Amino acid sequence: MKNSFGQNLIVTLFGESHGPAIGAVMDGLAPGIPVDESFIADQLTLRRPAGDLSTARREADAFSIVSGVFEGKTTGTPLCILIPNTDTRSGDYTALRHLPRPGHADYTAQCKYHGHQDYRGGGHFSGRLTAALVAAGAIALTALRSKGICIGTHILRCSGLSDRPFGDLASDLAALNTMPFAVLDRAAAQAMQQAVLRAAADGDSVGGVLETAVTGLPAGVGEPWFDTVEGLLSHALFSIPAVKGVEFGDGFAMADAAGSCCNDSFCLKNGRVVTKTNHNGGINGGITNGMPILFRCAVKPTPSIAREQETVDLRSGESVPLQIRGRHDPAIVHRARVVVDSVAALVLCDLLTGRFGTDWLCGRTDEAPAERAAT
Amino acid sequence: MKNSFGQNLIVTLFGESHGPAIGAVMDGLAPGIPVDESFIADQLTLRRPAGDLSTARREADAFSIVSGVFEGKTTGTPLCILIPNTDTRSGDYTALRHLPRPGHADYTAQCKYHGHQDYRGGGHFSGRLTAALVAAGAIALTALRSKGICIGTHILRCSGLSDRPFGDLASDLAALNTMPFAVLDRAAAQAMQQAVLRAAADGDSVGGVLETAVTGLPAGVGEPWFDTVEGLLSHALFSIPAVKGVEFGDGFAMADAAGSCCNDSFCLKNGRVVTKTNHNGGINGGITNGMPILFRCAVKPTPSIAREQETVDLRSGESVPLQIRGRHDPAIVHRARVVVDSVAALVLCDLLTGRFGTDWLCGRTDEAPAERAAT
Amino acid sequence: MKNSFGQNLIVTLFGESHGPAIGAVMDGLAPGIPVDESFIADQLTLRRPAGDLSTARREADAFSIVSGVFEGKTTGTPLCILIPNTDTRSGDYTALRHLPRPGHADYTAQCKYHGHQDYRGGGHFSGRLTAALVAAGAIALTALRSKGICIGTHILRCSGLSDRPFGDLASDLAALNTMPFAVLDRAAAQAMQQAVLRAAADGDSVGGVLETAVTGLPAGVGEPWFDTVEGLLSHALFSIPAVKGVEFGDGFAMADAAGSCCNDSFCLKNGRVVTKTNHNGGINGGITNGMPILFRCAVKPTPSIAREQETVDLRSGESVPLQIRGRHDPAIVHRARVVVDSVAALVLCDLLTGRFGTDWLCGRTDEAPAERAAT
Amino acid sequence: MKNSFGQNLIVTLFGESHGPAIGAVMDGLAPGIPVDESFIADQLTLRRPAGDLSTARREADAFSIVSGVFEGKTTGTPLCILIPNTDTRSGDYTALRHLPRPGHADYTAQCKYHGHQDYRGGGHFSGRLTAALVAAGAIALTALRSKGICIGTHILRCSGLSDRPFGDLASDLAALNTMPFAVLDRAAAQAMQQAVLRAAADGDSVGGVLETAVTGLPAGVGEPWFDTVEGLLSHALFSIPAVKGVEFGDGFAMADAAGSCCNDSFCLKNGRVVTKTNHNGGINGGITNGMPILFRCAVKPTPSIAREQETVDLRSGESVPLQIRGRHDPAIVHRARVVVDSVAALVLCDLLTGRFGTDWLCGRTDEAPAERAAT
Repeated sequence: MKNSFGQNLIVTLFGESHGPAIGAVMDGLAPGIPVDESFIADQLTLRRPAGDLSTARREADAFSIVSGVFEGKTTGTPLCILIPNTDTRSGDYTALRHLPRPGHADYTAQCKYHGHQDYRGGGHFSGRLTAALVAAGAIALTALRSKGICIGTHILRCSGLSDRPFGDLASDLAALNTMPFAVLDRAAAQAMQQAVLRAAADGDSVGGVLETAVTGLPAGVGEPWFDTVEGLLSHALFSIPAVKGVEFGDGFAMADAAGSCCNDSFCLKNGRVVTKTNHNGGINGGITNGMPILFRCAVKPTPSIAREQETVDLRSGESVPLQIRGRHDPAIVHRARVVVDSVAALVLCDLLTGRFGTDWLCGRTDEAPAERAAT
Repeated sequence: MKNSFGQNLIVTLFGESHGPAIGAVMDGLAPGIPVDESFIADQLTLRRPAGDLSTARREADAFSIVSGVFEGKTTGTPLCILIPNTDTRSGDYTALRHLPRPGHADYTAQCKYHGHQDYRGGGHFSGRLTAALVAAGAIALTALRSKGICIGTHILRCSGLSDRPFGDLASDLAALNTMPFAVLDRAAAQAMQQAVLRAAADGDSVGGVLETAVTGLPAGVGEPWFDTVEGLLSHALFSIPAVKGVEFGDGFAMADAAGSCCNDSFCLKNGRVVTKTNHNGGINGGITNGMPILFRCAVKPTPSIAREQETVDLRSGESVPLQIRGRHDPAIVHRARVVVDSVAALVLCDLLTGRFGTDWLCGRTDEAPAERAAT
Repeated sequence: MKNSFGQNLIVTLFGESHGPAIGAVMDGLAPGIPVDESFIADQLTLRRPAGDLSTARREADAFSIVSGVFEGKTTGTPLCILIPNTDTRSGDYTALRHLPRPGHADYTAQCKYHGHQDYRGGGHFSGRLTAALVAAGAIALTALRSKGICIGTHILRCSGLSDRPFGDLASDLAALNTMPFAVLDRAAAQAMQQAVLRAAADGDSVGGVLETAVTGLPAGVGEPWFDTVEGLLSHALFSIPAVKGVEFGDGFAMADAAGSCCNDSFCLKNGRVVTKTNHNGGINGGITNGMPILFRCAVKPTPSIAREQETVDLRSGESVPLQIRGRHDPAIVHRARVVVDSVAALVLCDLLTGRFGTDWLCGRTDEAPAERAAT
Repeated sequence: MKNSFGQNLIVTLFGESHGPAIGAVMDGLAPGIPVDESFIADQLTLRRPAGDLSTARREADAFSIVSGVFEGKTTGTPLCILIPNTDTRSGDYTALRHLPRPGHADYTAQCKYHGHQDYRGGGHFSGRLTAALVAAGAIALTALRSKGICIGTHILRCSGLSDRPFGDLASDLAALNTMPFAVLDRAAAQAMQQAVLRAAADGDSVGGVLETAVTGLPAGVGEPWFDTVEGLLSHALFSIPAVKGVEFGDGFAMADAAGSCCNDSFCLKNGRVVTKTNHNGGINGGITNGMPILFRCAVKPTPSIAREQETVDLRSGESVPLQIRGRHDPAIVHRARVVVDSVAALVLCDLLTGRFGTDWLCGRTDEAPAERAAT
């Protein structure tokens, strides 16, 4: 479905980096979910560039909700969020119109849209559009939280440095959700930030690995064969610019392990079936088993770097050197993590809505007697 | 869409391991694709268990095409392939009905289907259903080949041992497509096979990494934001049982690399824009750039192992030891690779049909004059 | 989705009139629905040609359920029904390969499939495929009945003759569901049957209007703007060969009526909000209001008639006379009504599954204690 | 897909009658379609209430295109159109919050959204949202016209009065496309307008029948079994508020006709296969045959009437009289016809994009040499 994702909760993205606005439409939200605009703003702040670690482009991200909310709650009809673009300096891009930047979508967009694409700042492919995903995701996160489902992501690796692994998930997720630079170990956080600054000073950029946990999901969610939890999450996660790998549980490490070390034995804990270990990341056969979901995303280094690169002038067909000016991020892994949370929340709301019906994500609170009788 | 995948070419899977048959329906195939039943049989043979490396269950995989083929070619209407189950020994499973096997979908199926699932041999979750994917994929591979698009997969790692990397893709893919144990380096192949046998003797199992290349795809294919080539491929690949990770190009290795080492510079070669390197695996911004697509799948070790494990009796809620009998594979990575080729072929046919229309995958050959005039 | 319909309960049709078999896959059924094979057989009998009113082709419709049923109930995984073709006389059609029959899909299939279609007996377009819809619909009808939802259709008009209007729906629907010729007024039934025989003797055919009622649906079902109850039902109903019009409530008659005669006032009856009249056929704004759903389908006369007609030879481009031999129906309206019931049942199960979740259509009956604890 | 329609060109509607704005997102448009804002404005004018025949609510419909257009042409990425609401008098509706209006979606929305819906002016169900459909449809109409495909609709009946039937389609469609009151016969137009005014004076409202023709479609478009041209068009047409019936070709009249009078014989005309008559409305087996498509929609009278009606107070459960104040249309059939054109254009663009690929609706004009080489 191109720019839409989901079957029961459907999110549609639109907009270009240098157009008047970007935005998203969410269709299939349960009626009655509280919409907390300050929480949306907080989430946008976590994604927004800040300080030396990010591009100098500064957008206020002053969003407006155009539809689907009434008296502070979702109506159940499509919710459209609009985020105007304000700090655009399109002139930076004129010279690049026919010079595709390596690692970007410039050349592939040219092949697909035959030159009609808005080339300025990556146009529709700009990471700017993830702001709309974050705004939409904030509403999904609220709905999930009301059902006891929590999501959090930390920077597990950045520029070759590692954070400590997840420990107690309840406290780790709570801590992460307000951290501007989401690293659990303070020393690791400082080292990573210095590495980003060194790369920036060097005209280069760095990537990383984001690790995400989801707690509180009921067992039995997921639709084999194709709409598995892994399949749907990875499908959506690969939409995040720069994500080039996704793994669940022990992931690629399982390829070298013995079967006896990968199976998670079942046992009973407080009257509930749980697994002793969680090598499979809370998913068996594509369906949740009630344990925390664990996955990791590989985020490649930002392709916009200050160093001179080589490209081809698409008009003349000649090789030319390329110097990218404009404002860019030496790393996006710290900004991407709230996008990962948002995408995961949207995918899970979609799956849960399909599994339990359109009212599940919000308790019914306003039944008129007549209606109760009729149904 | 649960057990269907694709939007333009839609594949629907059905069947259970111990039911009368499994099968697939393909809808949206171009009319006029030659259907070569011996090629389908060959592909099924590559997936079929054989020798000491695999389960002792032996299915003839005598498929029949029930619809959608006329005079040796696709009609353009749904093609249904049926593969009867013959060598089922359901008695092996009776004792396991209420004892979920670790690493399998038994417990999650119980949570999702409330005990109505066919529990025998994993039922609908059995790897047996990949035979239907392989049969469907064979037709997609034929259609792609007629357009100069080739797909091939090798076992890059197995039990901690590595194959040599891809070299000349044309000859490597040609060699792989008929190899029963798809490892490019002969010595590595022998070492891996011995490692599998050792694991089997030890009552254990091993996993591996499959690496796939696709050549000949036109640039400009893929649908941002969500229906990216990476998103669609990973979505489908995670349906293959045991796949727990998917990465494109340099994948997770990019997380530790500098941006200047991840960007692929553009240059002109024989009048065609190409990239000097291919760190991004032929995909920028989710769209093909005309270079070979490269991806890797992590395959976990087979969860059915001979060693005693622990589980919970779902009737009594008590912890019990579990000894799995029946017939099982000490490794499936060598059988899974043709499934990966098949899934990739189906996804790419879907994308290409959407991009270029329903006739593109087969040249029109039989136009009546009247029709030519009418359109 | 071409040959699939539905988003939560998805039905996929396959097969050709003269191929080895036709069939359907149902994906998204709740687990635990009892599958009554004798009810499926009864429904197929209502559709099957019989007596002088129908084609002489006689198919036993000996169906087999290939997957998705275990111990007499649906598993929740895809259910595939296969109906072999046995009484095919393909020789009847060889002469027609390049002579498109007026009113049939022969010419349009040639334009769409470029000559690759199976032309014999209409191939994939044959009314024969409605047998698969009826078999699938029987399972949907069973699921609905367990929730108190009933569907029934009568021949309101045939060859210019009218049945009496619906009266008490409970008794009318019960009576219709076993009637071979579904006309409520016995005298009208006889007159209609004689009119069909006269048309047959005259080498001609007749059409009719089918009127359907659905009782017991809860209020609040339907998805504006596009997936309205009217939109989804009409979408599926127009798939039934020969249906050329669909109207809800008073339908086209409302075009000439005053607004004051079309609005259905609300009142309270037994503590439940109902409408005093039902001009809108139980649907307001595309959503059910709890009153019976009422719709009518216009069924055109069978296009296969014995009289000589004119067509064009698609090879030579010359006009030629056409004499259709083979075995044909002078009317299909009496056979189509069970197809209408089936299609309506499938559409409503799809909507209800989306609205109330995947378990709603079947009470959970087999919860293991462990599972109860986990969810 | 709830508020989205289409599979290749997907339109998503959002907004409420008294919210800040309504709008639509179009995804899957070919790149390079010229976007003529004055044509969009003209189409909106044809839909906008005007004179005595319509509600006194006057919206400027000053739309803005937020994304997907660059340098005057579509980019191929999602196009979002926003239409602010300005002339809202929400106070008119406060008294109605718990008093569902007969014939409207008030009660069904209450049942579906449990009181969270925006009840003011019908909220999301308001005919106001058709302005967004018309704006989107204008772009689809432009794309179709560039391929020689024309659509036009006239008021065939209104308040029991009839227009003349379609004659020469080329001139009739050209004339209709700029007519504010789309009736081909001038005398009939005047009589209809007077009937509307009489109904208004009487506190009542009238309905009508809209008849639409589409010329220039290639043969071979449509996707059996389910995505037939009739099925897709009717699905979308029933989304238009007040449409309660849809028929193709001779429609319901075929139910009483003989088969020999319904079949359209084939002949050759100027070297092209055509049919001598067009009883089937250009569609056989759900696929276009190259003849004009003809269909009719039944439009019920506006449910908002000045006369006192009966309803139930949903708080108290008591029957109460209802007097609707506010501003309303005594007829909408004359405003709905441009909505029908728009919906038909969107559906056909969707089908054509699926059939011929994403570039078909716009000639490629801007190929860089490098790209030409690469594909």
